[in-house]
Amino acid sequence: GTGADNDLYINQAVVFIEDAIQYRSINHRVDFNSLWLYRWYYSRIWQWILSLTITIILALAFIEKPSSLTVTSDVRYRHPAWNPPCGLTESIELLCFLVFVVDVSVKSYLIGWEEFWKNKWLMAYILTLIVSLTDWIVSLSFFCAEDVRIRRILRPFFLLQNSSMMKKTLKSINSTLPEMASVVLLLAVHLSLFTMFAMLLFARTKDGQQDKEWLSYFRNLPDSLTTLLVLLTTANNPDVMIPAYSKNRAYSIFFILFTVLGNLFLMNLLTAIIYNQFRGYLLKSVQSSLFRRRLGIRAAFEVLSSLKEAPGNAQQSYVSTGALLQVLQKVEMDSRCKQAIMRSLKTYSCDQLSAAQFQKLFEELDKDAIKQHPPSPEYQSHFMQKMQFAFGHPYFGYLGNVVALANIISICVVLVMDADKQPSERDDFFLGAINCFFILYYLLEMLLKILALGLKRYLSYPSNRFDGLLTVILLALEIATFAVYGFPHPGWRPEFMGLLSLWDMVRLVNMLIVFRFLRIIPNMKFMSLVVTTLLDLVKNLRAFAGILVVVFYAFAITGIMLFKGAVLEFLGGVFILFPTSFYIKKVTVVLYFQKKYDFMALFGHFQAEVSCCLFYLLSVNLICRWAKIYFVAWWLISSVIWVNLFVALLLENFIHKWDRRCHREPVSDIEYQRTVELMFRDVLEEPTEEELMEKLHQHPHLQLCR
Amino acid sequence: GTGADNDLYINQAVVFIEDAIQYRSINHRVDFNSLWLYRWYYSRIWQWILSLTITIILALAFIEKPSSLTVTSDVRYRHPAWNPPCGLTESIELLCFLVFVVDVSVKSYLIGWEEFWKNKWLMAYILTLIVSLTDWIVSLSFFCAEDVRIRRILRPFFLLQNSSMMKKTLKSINSTLPEMASVVLLLAVHLSLFTMFAMLLFARTKDGQQDKEWLSYFRNLPDSLTTLLVLLTTANNPDVMIPAYSKNRAYSIFFILFTVLGNLFLMNLLTAIIYNQFRGYLLKSVQSSLFRRRLGIRAAFEVLSSLKEAPGNAQQSYVSTGALLQVLQKVEMDSRCKQAIMRSLKTYSCDQLSAAQFQKLFEELDKDAIKQHPPSPEYQSHFMQKMQFAFGHPYFGYLGNVVALANIISICVVLVMDADKQPSERDDFFLGAINCFFILYYLLEMLLKILALGLKRYLSYPSNRFDGLLTVILLALEIATFAVYGFPHPGWRPEFMGLLSLWDMVRLVNMLIVFRFLRIIPNMKFMSLVVTTLLDLVKNLRAFAGILVVVFYAFAITGIMLFKGAVLEFLGGVFILFPTSFYIKKVTVVLYFQKKYDFMALFGHFQAEVSCCLFYLLSVNLICRWAKIYFVAWWLISSVIWVNLFVALLLENFIHKWDRRCHREPVSDIEYQRTVELMFRDVLEEPTEEELMEKLHQHPHLQLCR
Repeated sequence: GTGADNDLYINQAVVFIEDAIQYRSINHRVDFNSLWLYRWYYSRIWQWILSLTITIILALAFIEKPSSLTVTSDVRYRHPAWNPPCGLTESIELLCFLVFVVDVSVKSYLIGWEEFWKNKWLMAYILTLIVSLTDWIVSLSFFCAEDVRIRRILRPFFLLQNSSMMKKTLKSINSTLPEMASVVLLLAVHLSLFTMFAMLLFARTKDGQQDKEWLSYFRNLPDSLTTLLVLLTTANNPDVMIPAYSKNRAYSIFFILFTVLGNLFLMNLLTAIIYNQFRGYLLKSVQSSLFRRRLGIRAAFEVLSSLKEAPGNAQQSYVSTGALLQVLQKVEMDSRCKQAIMRSLKTYSCDQLSAAQFQKLFEELDKDAIKQHPPSPEYQSHFMQKMQFAFGHPYFGYLGNVVALANIISICVVLVMDADKQPSERDDFFLGAINCFFILYYLLEMLLKILALGLKRYLSYPSNRFDGLLTVILLALEIATFAVYGFPHPGWRPEFMGLLSLWDMVRLVNMLIVFRFLRIIPNMKFMSLVVTTLLDLVKNLRAFAGILVVVFYAFAITGIMLFKGAVLEFLGGVFILFPTSFYIKKVTVVLYFQKKYDFMALFGHFQAEVSCCLFYLLSVNLICRWAKIYFVAWWLISSVIWVNLFVALLLENFIHKWDRRCHREPVSDIEYQRTVELMFRDVLEEPTEEELMEKLHQHPHLQLCR
Repeated sequence: GTGADNDLYINQAVVFIEDAIQYRSINHRVDFNSLWLYRWYYSRIWQWILSLTITIILALAFIEKPSSLTVTSDVRYRHPAWNPPCGLTESIELLCFLVFVVDVSVKSYLIGWEEFWKNKWLMAYILTLIVSLTDWIVSLSFFCAEDVRIRRILRPFFLLQNSSMMKKTLKSINSTLPEMASVVLLLAVHLSLFTMFAMLLFARTKDGQQDKEWLSYFRNLPDSLTTLLVLLTTANNPDVMIPAYSKNRAYSIFFILFTVLGNLFLMNLLTAIIYNQFRGYLLKSVQSSLFRRRLGIRAAFEVLSSLKEAPGNAQQSYVSTGALLQVLQKVEMDSRCKQAIMRSLKTYSCDQLSAAQFQKLFEELDKDAIKQHPPSPEYQSHFMQKMQFAFGHPYFGYLGNVVALANIISICVVLVMDADKQPSERDDFFLGAINCFFILYYLLEMLLKILALGLKRYLSYPSNRFDGLLTVILLALEIATFAVYGFPHPGWRPEFMGLLSLWDMVRLVNMLIVFRFLRIIPNMKFMSLVVTTLLDLVKNLRAFAGILVVVFYAFAITGIMLFKGAVLEFLGGVFILFPTSFYIKKVTVVLYFQKKYDFMALFGHFQAEVSCCLFYLLSVNLICRWAKIYFVAWWLISSVIWVNLFVALLLENFIHKWDRRCHREPVSDIEYQRTVELMFRDVLEEPTEEELMEKLHQHPHLQLCR
């Protein structure tokens, strides 16, 4: 019936507008039940369940065998970690898999059968689930005794496929790969030619005294390659030259040439190439988001215009304001935006909206969210007004910064003076007394500011919130300290013990004071620019960071599987991979061996190295060759590729921000909440009517009347 | 008289055109004698003398006491270096100073008294000379026994002031300093806050076993600062974490946070800021060069138009072609350009040239130098034509590449097989025989190519010149080897000794073969793009490299003066500074101590470290604090600032090149000799008539009639 049709159209419009708000694709089923399912799928609760599931399945690595749940990482001191009984983590896993199965089925159903076959991500999702479930069954049938668990490496895929940003970023990275591969090839040629040179230059001589260089670094082809690869990361930079340089100064030319060519030219060339490829990346991604938004709005317009109640006009289609109001009631969106749209809808004199007017209404979505701070209270008393002027003035804030700086300096002085004292000789009286004084000042500052600005206005500034929170925590800590240990007096010994020792309490207070000092950031112009750039960057970087997490996770799990002999738990793997992303070096390869324990005892007198044993000492094993490939691969991915991607993104962000800063005057009371979309607003191209309509007609499930 | 006036005008025009060609400023005296002096000053011979003088005075550091003229750097083995007698280097220095005095007087005279006072570089030049000469007199009066020689540190200034490019670059760097300083300040805040955190976190505890971290890295404020500064360069990256991580895994969060914030964000932010500042640098510099060129041409036009013989025209000034021809005869310029200008001059029907026509004539200077390869010889015989086709074909070149690759692989195989053999067990027969075969092939390839292309055309390709030269050298070496040691036969022992041992000969041949393999570069498209970018970069980078040399030199000399106790000669200083520019680390600070010799003997059993002693072991001395500041300053300048400048320049160059590559089709036979000026041709703005005339009227010595 017409009523049911109208309901369907209204529902479609609601979903399309929600798609537009969230920059989602509109290519999904649009019948009544599917729409209900679709809204349920993208409802906060289901998305939250999905995120939680992904978090849980990723977090399983911490408690699975070999478990990372120990405080110390030292195999000699640590208690045997709690290993969950067979079946515990497995049942959690099964629950997660079930959620994923539901997820993939709903997703596949919603986009429809034809689209499904074109969507490689969904196919990969299903494949991953099948492999994981098979592996899970195998695992249980071995009573968890098997070593190779493929499903663990596959886990980060669930994170990847759930984020459209990450998928988009991965696509961009993929298109940069050919150029990157060329430079990596160039690096490989550079490396291999220099390796041959080095082997000819530092060959074994008859005089055994003279070939120290050969002995230590260029003994054979793999050694020479490793040496020069490590030199490319500059990790063994002076050491590798020294024997040759001692013999003949001219040998250093070889190393300097290699480093300058490889490290300065080729490595930075990689940055240049990646930056060049990524220059338009942000813009392109924002442009395609804009297109999705306009498309969603346009689709809503089209379905609303086919409502039966609207007067049929052959030439142009219209939407009645009543229908739009009805839709708006049902749409889930930011209430500020909704009200703004409603308000401007009421100003229209005409009852009907054309497509352009319809689009214009929803431009409110693209606008800056202007945040107005609440007004200060208005005091009647003359004295209070003066107080308000004095303590609301920026100079009062500056005074607070100066006091915070004085506090930092006093802590620093005490630290320097106490540096060489035995713990038993220390006296916390001085520091306790001044900290007490400073914290009282902070409290006073906070109260006076609240008085001047009013509580609401005070809390509307993030810097005040930061300040106030830390002041309250400091006060609580201080009161707790005094309650347990009494007021500071000479001979206030740090070894007094309560829940926390006095010493720990004072340290904690000091750390918080140091942390509180960060409040100066907004007062320094350049610093605040840098910090806002970095915060923006963090927003744009989420996709990149996600991909890094995916690769990190996969590598750490692969590490556990590769180095079975060594007890390398998940956190240990992460700990090893972190430095390796800066350079490959013998010392970075720190593995925690259980089987080689007697070997470690031998080296026990080297205090620092007792808990870690150089991986290279195992170089006779097969593991070592695998380890080399593993670490070089990780270094290439994390340091060479990812860091350069990061630099490219930073350059892109910063240059846009910097350009913008020059032609925008600072506004004092109004804070713009800038998003990436807004940063590019003046360079974005609006999609044309034809493009939108063409795309709409390609919609697999929506049959438009015209 | 009029004739003398005319002569003067002609001479002025000649000098202005030469200024335009060399992109020089035209603000110099223009009377008859000054013009003669000016042309003499910029003549090839005087500029050559000046460069030679600068080279000599800089090179003095190698032979001055403490002299670097030893093969080995090992204080135990090296013969006492030849120390020049007092007065020898000093008299060379005096000669150089005299040249500089002449230089500065001529320069000051030529720009005139008024301009002189505005020119800070000239004043600094004179000041440097005065200080140097005073120091020289002091030095001689002490019979060269004094230690502090300020004039040595001042030497690189002579290099700096002689290059206008370097001065311009320095000005650009200077304008970037405020932004750089902000980021460095941010880094300092980051470092100091984290240092305080670290000192509070890793404080000394009562339990002596637990504070390994405190003991090794955070004992007091300077230690903590150093530790974190080194961590910022990632040099002590895993080591510094290990004791804390062993105690409690959570401690690693501190280090990871510090590294990510400092190394990933702040350091790369510096790159972004410097790149942002330098984005327009190349363009601006090319634009100002263009202005100088147009100005010089215009000035020549103006003086020529005031020639008495020219018919006075109140409205517009003209230049007769005769006068221009007369000027062109006298101008020193590229003969190709001169001929082209003459040729187009003859095509003008009118006898008089307007300003626009005059400028247009000289646009020849801006054009690409098109290099046409000479034609191949034309053979009569059918057989020869077929030969020519076969061996002139690119496939023949590819075959040569394949053969070169095969040669490389064979050498590689022999190297791998011989890696573990004792030198006495080695047999060079196999390698000798195959190398002999390959070199014969190379000879044949060269001859056939010459046959096909003709000698002239063969030599006109740089790749062929490279190829041919190496082939000839290889052949000569091979013939010499056979002459001395006979043809390869089984048991061709490498220890045969002649002028060079057979072993050395074979190694040399192999190295040359590896080097010859670089001929593949032009055949790989991406590689050749990268290599040409790098070569372009090297051209644009000369100014940067010069500044680096200046700073390097000054630092190395300061090092010699600071570490008087240690015998640190010039090359030793350079050798230490090189790795420090990548990171600051204990091990990098390798000093060669003579006074501490017994100390070194103690450590004699560490083979690799015997010749170098860790500088930190002297940390009780005052020197150490100075050394720390010295090395940190060097690291900041070289690694943080210079490397980032380099990256910025590379990005700028590469992105321009890459953009251009896309819309330019490859031309096979015509090679453009691209200069920076040409790269930007389509974005450059031509200066307007008004700008030029205004600048001309500001000329301090030239009075224009109108």
